[in-house]
Amino acid sequence: MHIGLIGLGKMGFNMRERLRNAGIEVTGLDRNPDVTDVAGMDELIAAVPAPRLIWVMVPSGDITESVITELGSKLDAGDLVIDGGNSRFTEDQKHAAALADEGIRFVDCGVSGGVWGLKNGYGLMAGGEAGDIERALPVFDALRPEGDRADSFVHVGAVGAGHYAKMVHNGIEYGLMQAYAEGYELLAAKDIITDLPGTFRAWQKGTVVRSWLLDLMVKALDEDPGLASIDDYVEDSGEGRWTVEEAIANAVPAPAITAALFARFSSREDNSPAMKMVSALRNQFGGHATRPAK
Amino acid sequence: MHIGLIGLGKMGFNMRERLRNAGIEVTGLDRNPDVTDVAGMDELIAAVPAPRLIWVMVPSGDITESVITELGSKLDAGDLVIDGGNSRFTEDQKHAAALADEGIRFVDCGVSGGVWGLKNGYGLMAGGEAGDIERALPVFDALRPEGDRADSFVHVGAVGAGHYAKMVHNGIEYGLMQAYAEGYELLAAKDIITDLPGTFRAWQKGTVVRSWLLDLMVKALDEDPGLASIDDYVEDSGEGRWTVEEAIANAVPAPAITAALFARFSSREDNSPAMKMVSALRNQFGGHATRPAK
Amino acid sequence: MHIGLIGLGKMGFNMRERLRNAGIEVTGLDRNPDVTDVAGMDELIAAVPAPRLIWVMVPSGDITESVITELGSKLDAGDLVIDGGNSRFTEDQKHAAALADEGIRFVDCGVSGGVWGLKNGYGLMAGGEAGDIERALPVFDALRPEGDRADSFVHVGAVGAGHYAKMVHNGIEYGLMQAYAEGYELLAAKDIITDLPGTFRAWQKGTVVRSWLLDLMVKALDEDPGLASIDDYVEDSGEGRWTVEEAIANAVPAPAITAALFARFSSREDNSPAMKMVSALRNQFGGHATRPAK
Amino acid sequence: MHIGLIGLGKMGFNMRERLRNAGIEVTGLDRNPDVTDVAGMDELIAAVPAPRLIWVMVPSGDITESVITELGSKLDAGDLVIDGGNSRFTEDQKHAAALADEGIRFVDCGVSGGVWGLKNGYGLMAGGEAGDIERALPVFDALRPEGDRADSFVHVGAVGAGHYAKMVHNGIEYGLMQAYAEGYELLAAKDIITDLPGTFRAWQKGTVVRSWLLDLMVKALDEDPGLASIDDYVEDSGEGRWTVEEAIANAVPAPAITAALFARFSSREDNSPAMKMVSALRNQFGGHATRPAK
Repeated sequence: MHIGLIGLGKMGFNMRERLRNAGIEVTGLDRNPDVTDVAGMDELIAAVPAPRLIWVMVPSGDITESVITELGSKLDAGDLVIDGGNSRFTEDQKHAAALADEGIRFVDCGVSGGVWGLKNGYGLMAGGEAGDIERALPVFDALRPEGDRADSFVHVGAVGAGHYAKMVHNGIEYGLMQAYAEGYELLAAKDIITDLPGTFRAWQKGTVVRSWLLDLMVKALDEDPGLASIDDYVEDSGEGRWTVEEAIANAVPAPAITAALFARFSSREDNSPAMKMVSALRNQFGGHATRPAK
Repeated sequence: MHIGLIGLGKMGFNMRERLRNAGIEVTGLDRNPDVTDVAGMDELIAAVPAPRLIWVMVPSGDITESVITELGSKLDAGDLVIDGGNSRFTEDQKHAAALADEGIRFVDCGVSGGVWGLKNGYGLMAGGEAGDIERALPVFDALRPEGDRADSFVHVGAVGAGHYAKMVHNGIEYGLMQAYAEGYELLAAKDIITDLPGTFRAWQKGTVVRSWLLDLMVKALDEDPGLASIDDYVEDSGEGRWTVEEAIANAVPAPAITAALFARFSSREDNSPAMKMVSALRNQFGGHATRPAK
Repeated sequence: MHIGLIGLGKMGFNMRERLRNAGIEVTGLDRNPDVTDVAGMDELIAAVPAPRLIWVMVPSGDITESVITELGSKLDAGDLVIDGGNSRFTEDQKHAAALADEGIRFVDCGVSGGVWGLKNGYGLMAGGEAGDIERALPVFDALRPEGDRADSFVHVGAVGAGHYAKMVHNGIEYGLMQAYAEGYELLAAKDIITDLPGTFRAWQKGTVVRSWLLDLMVKALDEDPGLASIDDYVEDSGEGRWTVEEAIANAVPAPAITAALFARFSSREDNSPAMKMVSALRNQFGGHATRPAK
Repeated sequence: MHIGLIGLGKMGFNMRERLRNAGIEVTGLDRNPDVTDVAGMDELIAAVPAPRLIWVMVPSGDITESVITELGSKLDAGDLVIDGGNSRFTEDQKHAAALADEGIRFVDCGVSGGVWGLKNGYGLMAGGEAGDIERALPVFDALRPEGDRADSFVHVGAVGAGHYAKMVHNGIEYGLMQAYAEGYELLAAKDIITDLPGTFRAWQKGTVVRSWLLDLMVKALDEDPGLASIDDYVEDSGEGRWTVEEAIANAVPAPAITAALFARFSSREDNSPAMKMVSALRNQFGGHATRPAK
C-alpha cells in the first residue's frame, strides 16, 4: 500500500514513521523542506498510485480548509481523503460534500495519542461510509496499537462522527487533567504531606484513579518535583471550546469540563477585569481596601 | 433608652451615630481611645442602666469569643447581649448557653448595609426568643431604614437563625457580585461597546438587573472608568466559605455562589500549582511548550 | 410623531400602550387579529408617514429575519428600522447591511423590563449611528422611565452593540437569579429558619442584596410562600447561551453565569445520562448499589 | 506474621483473603457471624500474638471511633493499630494521641481499589512514624499489587497524611468520573454517533484518556449498553465533601471536583427549591409560564 500524508508536524511526522514501520509506503508533504518527501502537492499526487488515499494531518481551520480545497481540485474521482486533524465536526459535512462533487470520497478520523503515538500507537475514531472505512483499514491498523482492533479503533458513525467523538474525547481530557491538577494543588497545600511526588507514583497501580495521564504526572514530577520551572499559563485549543459549545447546543450540563476550560482562561489573565470589579464593589459598600494596580 | 455598644470600627462607629440620631443614648467601648466613650468594660457596665442591653459589634471569631466570655462574667442576670457581628451561626448556641448559665439573655443579629448604613439604615435579621427580640425593638427600629418594619427587619427564628440568614445573605452577595463582574468583563472584552460605564448607568432604571450593587458599580466606574487603579486581588471573609460549607452539609447544589468564592481564591494566586500541572501534562502528552516560570 | 410597531406580544403590546400614553402615534401590526391595528405589512407602511420609523418587536431568529427581509423590500430609502427584540448581536450587522443596500437605516435596541415595563418604563441599550439614534430619541424617551435619560438609556456603540449589551444583561440576570435561588434553597433547608418569606422581605431595604429581582422574590413568596404550586423545570432562551458562547469566544471566565445556565439544563432532565454513568461506575469499582431506573 | 483484622465487609473480607493468599495469618472480627473468625474483641486480642498489629477496616465516623476506643482500652503498650478505613484525616491525630496515652502505636492508611483489590491488589497511602510503617511493611506488601513497591505504596507523611491523600484521591475520582460522564452524555446526545459503546471501547488503548475508570465504563456499557436499567440517583460519601471543605480551608480553587459533588446533590433532588424560585422569578418579571408542580 502506498499513501500520501500531508502535514509532517508533531503528529504527522511520527505517523509517517509508524506507518513505514508497518510496511506501508508513505509519501509525505510538508512546508518544511527538512521533513518533506516531495516539493509540492502536484508531486505528491503524482507519486501516490490511484485510486489514492491521502491522509491530511494539518492544523484545523484555514489550513485544513485550503488543503482540502486544493485536493478537491487536483485529485481524481475515486480517490479518498482522510482528515486526521482536529477539525470541527461541523466542517466535515462541508468538506465531504465539496469533494463528493468531484467524486472524491471523504472520511474524518480523530487521532489521539500525542507524541507517544509513534511508540504506543494511536487511538482512532473514524466517521464516514462503511466502504471508505473498509478501504482505509490497513492504515488504521498500522497506526493503532497492536491487539484487538476494537480496543483502539472505532467506526463511530457518518461523516463528522469521528471528529465529534475526538472533540468529546478532548473535552473529557480537559476535565481529567483539571481534576488531577486540583488534587495536586490540594496535596501541595498541606504540610503534613511530605512525599508529594511519591503519592502520585503510588497511585499508578491498584488505585481507582490510575490512568495514563497519572503516569504522565509521575513523569513530570520526576523531571521537576515541584514544577518550579513551569509557569501556570495554559493554552487551550479548539476542542475544549467546541465541547462546551456542543454542551450548550444540546442542553447538556457539563460543569466539570467547563470548569477546566475557564481555569485555563483564568490562568492567562494577569489582571482580571471581573475581579477588579468585585474588589471595587467590596470597597464601595464595605469600605474594604482595594490593592493598588500592579 | 440607654444601651452599651462594644466595637466602634467601620460598622459600630456609624451605628452609634445612627442610634444617637434616633434619640437612643449609647455608651460605646473600643480599644481605640480616639473613638471610645469609656475606658473599659467595667466602666461600660457601670454606665448602662440595668437591665442592660449590650450590643457587640466586633470581629467574629476569637475577639467576639473573648468579649462574650467577659460579658458573661460581669453582666447581671436579666441583661441582654446582642451579637451583631458576623459570627458563624454555630457559635451562637454556645454563646447563648454560656450566658444563660448566668441568667443573661442572648440574641444574634445579622446586620447588612456596610458603610452606607449610617445614612440609609441597616437591614437586620435577628435570632432569639420573642421576648428578647421585643425588648430590643427600639434599637432595631433606630438602626433600620424608615418605613415598614417588615421591609428591613425580621425575627428569623431561634438563636443562630439571624446569623444563618446573614451568612446566606452574604453568600448571595458573592454570587451577585460575581455575575455583575463577569458581565462587566464580557462588555469590556468587546470593542463594539464604546460606552461601558454608560451601559451600567443605563441599567439603573427599568431593567431587570437594577439593584443597589449595580448603583455602586456605576459609582465605582464614575470614580475610575476603567478600574485602572485597582488590582484584581480579592479577599474573602468567613461568610462566603461558611455558605459553601452549609451547602455541602445540607446537600444543596450552590454552583454560582461557589464559583464566586473560587474566583476570589484564584484572584489571589500568582502561580497556581494546579495550572502548572495542567501545563506540565500538556507538555508530556502533546509536546506543547510550557512557559518558563515567572 | 407616528411610528410603526411590528409585534404586539407580551412586550410589544405594552410598549404600544406606553408610547401612546406618551403622545406618540403608533400603528401596530400583529398576526393576532385581536390586537393588530392593520391587516398587513403593506397597510402598516401606508399608514406611517415617511421617512418612517418602524420598531420590530418579534421573536428573534427566523421571524425577525423574515420581517426585516420584508421591510427591506417594501420600505423606502431614508426609513429607519429598529430591532428591539432579542436578536443575537451577530445578526445585526447582516440586517444593517441588507437594509443599507436599499438606503434604509438600522438600529438595534436591547429592551429590558418585562411585563412591568408598561408601568415602570423600559431600560434601553441602543447600537447604531449617532444620527439614527438621535432621530429615535423621542421613542426611546417615551419608553424609558422618567428621570435622567442616562439612567435608563444608552447609546452603547455601533450596530450590534445594543443587542450585545442586552445579551450580557440577560447573562447577568441568569447569574443573579441563580445566586438568589441558591440562597433561597439554603434557607429553606435549615429548620432554625422559621420565617423564610419574612427574611427575603426584610432584605428589601438597607441590605447589600436589595434589588428589583429581590422585590419580585418577595412578591412570588407572597403569592405562594413555599412555591408549592411551581415545578422546578426552567426554560432558557437564547441570551444565556449566547453569553456563555461569547465568554468562550473571548476567553472570559464566566463560571457563575454558566452555572446558572447548566442548572436550568439539569432542571429539565428527568434521567441524566451522565449521572446514570456515574452511578454505573460507582457500582463497577466499589460494588455500590445502583437504583433501578424509574 | 499473624495480624488482627476488624471489619469484614466489602473491603475487609477481600483483604483478609488477599493477605492469607500471601501467607499472612489473619484473625478477622465482624458483627456478621457468617464471616467472623472470632466472637468478639477479647477473643481477637487473645488470638493475635503480641506485639500485635490490628488493622481496622470499618465505616468511618462513629463505628471507627468506638472500635478505636475499645482497642485503646484493651490492647497492650507496643501494639500497633492501623486505620485502613475512610476516616477523615482530622480524626487521626485524635486517635493517635488517645492510643499513645496507652503506649499503643497508630498508623492511618488510605486504601484504594474497591472490589477489584482482591485480584489486582490495593493502592496504599500510609501516614505515621517511620518505625511503625516499617513494621507493617509485610502487610502493605501483601495487600498491594506485585511489582515495585513505590508504584502502589507510599509513606505520605505524619499521622493523618495517609487519609488526607486518600481523601484527595477520592476527590479526584469524583472529578474524573464526572468528566467521563459528561462526555458520555454529549456523545449520547448526538445522533451521528451510531456506536457509543464502541467509542469508549476504542479509547482503551492509545488515547490520552485511557484509564482504569474508562475500562470500567466499557464494562458497564457491555452489561447495559444504554444504561437503561440504572437510575441517575447518585450517592456521595464523606471524602468528596471533605475534599471541597479542604479546598475552602486552604483557599484552593477546586471547581471541577466541586462540580462533581454538586452534580450528585442535584441528581438526588426531585424538585429543587432553587429552580422553583428561578421559575417563579421568570414568571414574575417576564410573564413566562411556570409548570405546575409534579
